[in-house]
Amino acid sequence: MELTVYLAGEIHSSWRDEVKEKVRSLKLPISFVGPMENHDRSDSIGEEILGKQPNAVLRDETASSFNNLRTSVLMQKSDIVIALFGEKYKQWNTAMDASTALSLGKPLILIRPEQLHHPLKELSSKANVTVETVNQAIKALSYIFDTE
Amino acid sequence: MELTVYLAGEIHSSWRDEVKEKVRSLKLPISFVGPMENHDRSDSIGEEILGKQPNAVLRDETASSFNNLRTSVLMQKSDIVIALFGEKYKQWNTAMDASTALSLGKPLILIRPEQLHHPLKELSSKANVTVETVNQAIKALSYIFDTE
Amino acid sequence: MELTVYLAGEIHSSWRDEVKEKVRSLKLPISFVGPMENHDRSDSIGEEILGKQPNAVLRDETASSFNNLRTSVLMQKSDIVIALFGEKYKQWNTAMDASTALSLGKPLILIRPEQLHHPLKELSSKANVTVETVNQAIKALSYIFDTE
Amino acid sequence: MELTVYLAGEIHSSWRDEVKEKVRSLKLPISFVGPMENHDRSDSIGEEILGKQPNAVLRDETASSFNNLRTSVLMQKSDIVIALFGEKYKQWNTAMDASTALSLGKPLILIRPEQLHHPLKELSSKANVTVETVNQAIKALSYIFDTE
Amino acid sequence: MELTVYLAGEIHSSWRDEVKEKVRSLKLPISFVGPMENHDRSDSIGEEILGKQPNAVLRDETASSFNNLRTSVLMQKSDIVIALFGEKYKQWNTAMDASTALSLGKPLILIRPEQLHHPLKELSSKANVTVETVNQAIKALSYIFDTE
Amino acid sequence: MELTVYLAGEIHSSWRDEVKEKVRSLKLPISFVGPMENHDRSDSIGEEILGKQPNAVLRDETASSFNNLRTSVLMQKSDIVIALFGEKYKQWNTAMDASTALSLGKPLILIRPEQLHHPLKELSSKANVTVETVNQAIKALSYIFDTE
Amino acid sequence: MELTVYLAGEIHSSWRDEVKEKVRSLKLPISFVGPMENHDRSDSIGEEILGKQPNAVLRDETASSFNNLRTSVLMQKSDIVIALFGEKYKQWNTAMDASTALSLGKPLILIRPEQLHHPLKELSSKANVTVETVNQAIKALSYIFDTE
Amino acid sequence: MELTVYLAGEIHSSWRDEVKEKVRSLKLPISFVGPMENHDRSDSIGEEILGKQPNAVLRDETASSFNNLRTSVLMQKSDIVIALFGEKYKQWNTAMDASTALSLGKPLILIRPEQLHHPLKELSSKANVTVETVNQAIKALSYIFDTE
Repeated sequence: MELTVYLAGEIHSSWRDEVKEKVRSLKLPISFVGPMENHDRSDSIGEEILGKQPNAVLRDETASSFNNLRTSVLMQKSDIVIALFGEKYKQWNTAMDASTALSLGKPLILIRPEQLHHPLKELSSKANVTVETVNQAIKALSYIFDTE
Repeated sequence: MELTVYLAGEIHSSWRDEVKEKVRSLKLPISFVGPMENHDRSDSIGEEILGKQPNAVLRDETASSFNNLRTSVLMQKSDIVIALFGEKYKQWNTAMDASTALSLGKPLILIRPEQLHHPLKELSSKANVTVETVNQAIKALSYIFDTE
Repeated sequence: MELTVYLAGEIHSSWRDEVKEKVRSLKLPISFVGPMENHDRSDSIGEEILGKQPNAVLRDETASSFNNLRTSVLMQKSDIVIALFGEKYKQWNTAMDASTALSLGKPLILIRPEQLHHPLKELSSKANVTVETVNQAIKALSYIFDTE
Repeated sequence: MELTVYLAGEIHSSWRDEVKEKVRSLKLPISFVGPMENHDRSDSIGEEILGKQPNAVLRDETASSFNNLRTSVLMQKSDIVIALFGEKYKQWNTAMDASTALSLGKPLILIRPEQLHHPLKELSSKANVTVETVNQAIKALSYIFDTE
Repeated sequence: MELTVYLAGEIHSSWRDEVKEKVRSLKLPISFVGPMENHDRSDSIGEEILGKQPNAVLRDETASSFNNLRTSVLMQKSDIVIALFGEKYKQWNTAMDASTALSLGKPLILIRPEQLHHPLKELSSKANVTVETVNQAIKALSYIFDTE
Repeated sequence: MELTVYLAGEIHSSWRDEVKEKVRSLKLPISFVGPMENHDRSDSIGEEILGKQPNAVLRDETASSFNNLRTSVLMQKSDIVIALFGEKYKQWNTAMDASTALSLGKPLILIRPEQLHHPLKELSSKANVTVETVNQAIKALSYIFDTE
Repeated sequence: MELTVYLAGEIHSSWRDEVKEKVRSLKLPISFVGPMENHDRSDSIGEEILGKQPNAVLRDETASSFNNLRTSVLMQKSDIVIALFGEKYKQWNTAMDASTALSLGKPLILIRPEQLHHPLKELSSKANVTVETVNQAIKALSYIFDTE
Repeated sequence: MELTVYLAGEIHSSWRDEVKEKVRSLKLPISFVGPMENHDRSDSIGEEILGKQPNAVLRDETASSFNNLRTSVLMQKSDIVIALFGEKYKQWNTAMDASTALSLGKPLILIRPEQLHHPLKELSSKANVTVETVNQAIKALSYIFDTE
């Protein structure tokens, strides 16, 4: 049995590399998908495809439609979603993706530093599990395959 | 035909009163539901019902389960969800509620100041309509009933 | 038992009035909803609410989001959808609404002049019933209430 | 990860060949399905299987049932739907297929020349992304696989 | 709490009258819907609305589309479906309606004489309850309202 | 706004009366439904309707089909499910009803004495809220209606 | 692309062999599943597994539960359902399976001799296509794979 | 065709080994998944990943969230669920898993000793088949693949 995991959340740190490396070292049969990690490109993809837009809001609007297309396709291919919240940024698209995962019946692992618990309390209460570190999320993935 | 509208979003300003008053003055057949607007109570409802919790995280956890219960019941009774984002706070539960509305097939009206467009671009792209003021949201509600 | 019927389709003729009048004269317990029938307003509703847009495409885009919001709310309140195709105009939103009705499990009555059968053949094949006149659609509605 | 894309829309030009060729040259792991592209055969398939029909409407009706069967099977196998609208023909089955894709939760890429924006505005507003050329649609597909 | 019950099945005997009378005498808050009970009309409704058809098969086809429209609307309004099978006739539409009820999550009460058990065994195994007489079905309805 | 609450769980104590009385004294707009509370009748309802069965297992089987019919109808009418577990009995039907509620998207309030936490931990983790007393469940219901 | 087709319907003739042979000779990438074709075994499977039952009705009941288990598993694995009705037998399980297929969104090909049109008219009206011979059903399957 | 079967139920006996061995000896193309069978680990997995918890209830709560995550992922990968009830323990999570399977449309085979029929009668009535021994469940699986 192979699993596909969607890695939602911030694209400013290298947490996805950490996840992939550890899963590889544990030889778990998991493959990963996720958002465009090149931040500049995820902001400019609308203009890259459709050309210069009249203003900043429309630049954002066109970019977000291609980002949502990508997320929609890849999340539907996934068996589990991991959403990581960091200390910076609004991260409303992460909250949206996490909530979409729950609504699609995709089990959700939420990673957040303890100090973010208060603003994330309602989402944490809906997540299947909430952990604080990438390492703990890996252990949760690993537990799915463990037989004893 | 009567509609029920769930008013998701910040509970620190009086925007819900503004919505209700304008809808009343327009005599639109709409009733409103929403989260507990007393912030302190929404934070302490877990301990109010279950008693003192061992620590702050668990205090939050128990509170959020009652808040989510409330939201779940009331949103299922709603025909439309309006989600308002303000300049302050993380508002991840608002993003979660907005996304849940979309997943349940409830039409979503997003209200946000233009300067928040960038962090809200993916959610805005999924919303049925995005507006900048309460007044515009009222006009959108009113348009549903207009016959010419 | 009361039924709500959504009347999708062209807004350039008075077919909805004909439907409503006949249903009233038959005293059938049916109420009707439908799109904004003032064509100019349905084209300008985006700018009416959000203000002047940079160009014609964006004017259309904003208008369509409010029109879709309206349709989404009202169609979910409906038990049956009647979609009428006329000889003029592209009417792609009518085809879209008719198809959405089918996907939502709302029974669909398609009204089209016989000469439009060829381009509408796939939609007609999916509709619950296809008729040629408003009068025939009324008979179909009436049959639902008849006891003998 | 391999994706299957359903190519809905007009069968009078060679746009599907253009899509397939470009995707092949980009070595994207995508396979394509779509409607019967031989127009005469898609019109006569009913009589080909069931024999001569009493009149033109019934000839159409039987043909459309086999065309819809085909579309239904193939679209369910697809991860994404691309719908292309051209300048000619009613293309109501394309609007129907595009809308069905959205209702099934299949992400939809809409291709239409800018001058068709007005009649397609409601469908465009529902599509995940709207582009003007086949090339732009390919870029959207490619973006799903890009990692930076 | 009021319930609506769809009475599927044969229209050649007066079993529906028996059901309604007994429910009325028990003062249960139940209203009933069901198919057209005038057999001739249910066979000719297609031609009644659309005019003379080319042959008997098409006469049947048009009639069945209006009958299915009726069933679809009324069954969606129902909380429970009762399907009665008698000794005569093919009754394939009854089996279809019973199965549709189950797929829609509508509880199904199957009434059949014991001697029909063998051919109905798979449907009986899926039904919520199987009884042999109208009287037993009434008792099942009554039990839903009983408090002791 | 009125809510309907299904009261699942043991029928050997008078906890339902306690719930109803308190809700009445709080004047909350809630009505209640639930299983047959006369234990003997819920065990014999199969034979009461269908007559003497060949053995004890079949006596149980027929009874359970009528009990499940009742639960299915009433739970679909409900907005919230409260499931109470007591110290005695297997209560597997309560676990089943609670799980069905969750699968239907009905918010679930679980009431169990603290000492039952271990065997109920997986169900508790899925429930919207878990409380220990009827009184706490009433507070949870009341909170849904509170405005401050 | 490979398809799986469930062959519902009578098990007294060799029509399934005919289907499989023709599909093999056309080299279509289709595999087939279906009910137990050994009639005696499908009637006795309940007693084969659970032992002698008290009477004929219970013998049927246990058999049908294993037959429905089989059908449920295999139909969920299928992309298309073909249901064949013959001149003999009640075939209510065939009508049930055909209707279940439609409710699951599985495209349905109905095969029936023209003389059975009247009793099958409602099911025929719901089926994606209705044909009269196995050969015509094969052509419908083949058309799905044809590219011109 | 390969099937995946989730083996829900008690983890104190070696019934899963018995199932797997027999299926292997019959060379059936079935693979198995299920809960963590090391009881101590399934109780301590929360603390293993998240560290020491404040009290026994919270130790259970964290453990159950990881156990439910595991079950949710693996059950969604399954085609059939087998749930075995034994004479000891509360087994409420087994009842919950069995009920979840039914709600997800996964066929359910219930194994229970005859003496447990009374408390399991409602769940048994909903299960696709109920048997008394592992051997009988294997026969049910085998029957799905048998061709005569």
